[in-house]
Amino acid sequence: MIERLCIIGVGLIGGSLARALRQAGACREIVGAGRDPAHLEQAVKLGVIDRYALDAGAAVEGADGVVIAVPLGAVEGVLRRVRGRLGANAVVTDVGSAKGSVVDAARAVFGAVPPWFVPGHPLAGTEKNGVAASVADLFRGRRVILTPLPETDRAALARVRALWECAGAEVVEMDVTRHDQVLAATSHVPHLLAYALVDGLARRDGGEEIFRFAAGGFRDFTRIASSDPVMWRDICLANRAAVLAELQRFGEDLGRLAEAIRQGDGERITAVFNRAKQARDRFIESQGQDMGPTSPIE
Amino acid sequence: MIERLCIIGVGLIGGSLARALRQAGACREIVGAGRDPAHLEQAVKLGVIDRYALDAGAAVEGADGVVIAVPLGAVEGVLRRVRGRLGANAVVTDVGSAKGSVVDAARAVFGAVPPWFVPGHPLAGTEKNGVAASVADLFRGRRVILTPLPETDRAALARVRALWECAGAEVVEMDVTRHDQVLAATSHVPHLLAYALVDGLARRDGGEEIFRFAAGGFRDFTRIASSDPVMWRDICLANRAAVLAELQRFGEDLGRLAEAIRQGDGERITAVFNRAKQARDRFIESQGQDMGPTSPIE
Repeated sequence: MIERLCIIGVGLIGGSLARALRQAGACREIVGAGRDPAHLEQAVKLGVIDRYALDAGAAVEGADGVVIAVPLGAVEGVLRRVRGRLGANAVVTDVGSAKGSVVDAARAVFGAVPPWFVPGHPLAGTEKNGVAASVADLFRGRRVILTPLPETDRAALARVRALWECAGAEVVEMDVTRHDQVLAATSHVPHLLAYALVDGLARRDGGEEIFRFAAGGFRDFTRIASSDPVMWRDICLANRAAVLAELQRFGEDLGRLAEAIRQGDGERITAVFNRAKQARDRFIESQGQDMGPTSPIE
Repeated sequence: MIERLCIIGVGLIGGSLARALRQAGACREIVGAGRDPAHLEQAVKLGVIDRYALDAGAAVEGADGVVIAVPLGAVEGVLRRVRGRLGANAVVTDVGSAKGSVVDAARAVFGAVPPWFVPGHPLAGTEKNGVAASVADLFRGRRVILTPLPETDRAALARVRALWECAGAEVVEMDVTRHDQVLAATSHVPHLLAYALVDGLARRDGGEEIFRFAAGGFRDFTRIASSDPVMWRDICLANRAAVLAELQRFGEDLGRLAEAIRQGDGERITAVFNRAKQARDRFIESQGQDMGPTSPIE
């Protein structure tokens, strides 16, 4: 389906997509691009990519499919480097966790979002990083959100959709703003809460002795605080408005809960806990039905 | 070691301790107590207890070891029912997640904390409840915190310690106030954050459609929001002062992080994320060394 796939940023996500498409026999050649030659050499040795170029502009030449899988803060720079180097039949997508900033970057580089650029976001990943952690089934049964614009070419959209479906993902389309709000609420704010909590504990007198008394619930709750700091800094800054709005909203909810505790209002506390437990139990049940179990981590 | 063990509240914790001690051959007879005869019948059928009484006072007669494993809000009532019914050689412990309120309850019932009462708290559990979820190895490699007072009899403390060690746990002693602060920070506040987040999402327009786009990180982050609402209401109210103090502290940390995002201060954001990741990675590493892996849940 793809003659030459170019993956810019051969890390966990880019590397896993390359593995999945190769395993599916969906592309003839895979070219990697990145800044670190040792890392790209490793990707070649692992069989994830066939060859690489350190310059993204050189890497995309002759490619009919391009996936930008770099941290959000680096997307605009990559778009600048590939401008004018893409073939006429190339479609380009990205994997960034915020989409408004990627659309802004495309507008800044090209004047308008090009019809062949389809912003995307796979809802998959672990707190591990790098091509060594990449696996062919990372996207199997997972959702990928594409956020096409009115100016997006329908054929380009269909090709990007097919690429993700080849990797086993379920593709859904969503408005850019809605995507950024939903992800701020379900992913970006939870990461901030986990980071803030662990950092707050670690900075205390007595250092990290307190972690000795943390149980299994804490381990799961804070797993996302082991995620890559630079990637998550980029996400928080790229999706700043939605993240701050969701943080504000969460802070108000938490304040109301604290007030109920202060007043000893057991009924209000139980009402919150009950609604949450029911919603979370339904979420797990629905996930079990339509997504299969998440892969074990650690 | 124990002739007759009485477990008041034969749920996940009480049932698992009974199973562990029976498996270790550490007690001759196990008597259950509780309010629900059907539940206690089930515990007998499962082989967790030998027999039961619906009245805690009747159940403790002739017992040399008594474990109170009821929700925190029910501890004082249980202490009232067993008063005057305990044998001269009986030691009593509890498993409550807050210890100050249990000590207060003992003082309210007995005038002073009796020398034979050793407050305790096993750092183990899942979001599952009930005797059907109980397993003999729930405490294996886990920590149990005992919070003896100056008036606690050293022999009683040693017997309660031995009981938990028989179940495979590592016993540590801690001051009551310190226990309640550490647990508020590492367990009670994380539960509140997870409950508040999930409830806030569930209450939105469009209902729970938003959960469709939640990924694996969200699943782990919110696991504790599937915990028992009544048990956690009791914990929040029992440990109210420490919980509110820790919530306040967390709110200030989160506010500073939000301010850094608002200002686009990538350095400050990365500093928080880096410290958190390092602390969390060290926590996991140390856990791996001295606690073994946590049991898989769900």
